[in-house]
Amino acid sequence: MANVIESRLADMGIELPEPPPPVAAYVPYRIAVGLVHISGQLPLVDGELIVGKLGLDIDTEAGMAAARHCAINLLAQLRAACGGDWERVGCAVKINGFVNSTPEFKQHPQVINGASEFLASAMGEAGKHARSAIGVSSLPLGAAVEVDGAFHIR
Amino acid sequence: MANVIESRLADMGIELPEPPPPVAAYVPYRIAVGLVHISGQLPLVDGELIVGKLGLDIDTEAGMAAARHCAINLLAQLRAACGGDWERVGCAVKINGFVNSTPEFKQHPQVINGASEFLASAMGEAGKHARSAIGVSSLPLGAAVEVDGAFHIR
Amino acid sequence: MANVIESRLADMGIELPEPPPPVAAYVPYRIAVGLVHISGQLPLVDGELIVGKLGLDIDTEAGMAAARHCAINLLAQLRAACGGDWERVGCAVKINGFVNSTPEFKQHPQVINGASEFLASAMGEAGKHARSAIGVSSLPLGAAVEVDGAFHIR
Repeated sequence: MANVIESRLADMGIELPEPPPPVAAYVPYRIAVGLVHISGQLPLVDGELIVGKLGLDIDTEAGMAAARHCAINLLAQLRAACGGDWERVGCAVKINGFVNSTPEFKQHPQVINGASEFLASAMGEAGKHARSAIGVSSLPLGAAVEVDGAFHIR
Repeated sequence: MANVIESRLADMGIELPEPPPPVAAYVPYRIAVGLVHISGQLPLVDGELIVGKLGLDIDTEAGMAAARHCAINLLAQLRAACGGDWERVGCAVKINGFVNSTPEFKQHPQVINGASEFLASAMGEAGKHARSAIGVSSLPLGAAVEVDGAFHIR
Repeated sequence: MANVIESRLADMGIELPEPPPPVAAYVPYRIAVGLVHISGQLPLVDGELIVGKLGLDIDTEAGMAAARHCAINLLAQLRAACGGDWERVGCAVKINGFVNSTPEFKQHPQVINGASEFLASAMGEAGKHARSAIGVSSLPLGAAVEVDGAFHIR
């Protein structure tokens, strides 16, 4: 799968960022019993955070783009977790998509599809995952979306 | 346990629905390292979604019923995940119950008991699980409750 | 690691509480495939719950203290899960920190650091974990923070 992922990313014109180092008493990912759990990723693009609240000041399209950037950062952490050896990655298992949204917002699935579709594009069948998509009242630093995930790793 | 679950469901007058096929780039469940992670289930009953916000326009009793329906759909996905062979299911491990609620709502445990009690009724000791119950600002399509879960599967 | 954890707790002047017994159809923790999933813990201190909404009626400092108490209760459940034998605990894997907060709140990472820093203080390297920190509209009984977690256990 190794080269496939890298070449798919290249086809999409995506270069995975260097994942930021841990800034607190927690770590970006932890491997145990064949699963790697990755910390909630924010939609950071070249150091800029996509902020906003769905249903208020950012639309569904922009929310999808934010979710996609969360997933790109998730994949960057996954690459670090497997030491750059994609052969060690079995598959995506579960992602949780948290949408910063108003009490009336209803389009969480569309927003989080931005993350799901990216993972499927980059990883193919192995990128398909179980997921939950929920609306939250607020997110760190005002981020529009946050996505965490668990992957099978060898 | 196999026949026990089916006969308990029959005793409760519950027929598990056919789980809906995946509608996006994600899947209803994913099995890895002996755990099956099941996507967030909504309170869909015969194609009708139970919508509403606890503390605003749906009461705790109705919220419990919604949570119970989420758990019925979770069990339907679990049955699909084990190919109908309940012997493959070890136990429920963890569920997350997301309650669409106002900022003042406090009765999340009672609401999510609708899911927990159903799982314990259907699966007995094996149905007991760790859980988190939280209030969220909004849910997909305006659903009143969403529940996801992880189960031990062989 | 056994004595180390107990002596670190003693150094911090912390005595782990007796974890409360299950009050519903769910259980405080469930062990499967080498992971123990622990139910969402509330900031209960000597039977008193720390309530409030970040950004409204409780400040970040107090929120951190609440998160720390959630983590103390998490560790008390972990001790019960390993039967008091800390040698059975591999490491912390993932925590989810739910912050009861207003739509405008942004300091979730600082709040949940109260939990993360406690785990790292008590467990050292083994206490470092992946995490997600999110803002939620409400929590059970009006709690200010809720934290759940998964740990590697043998």
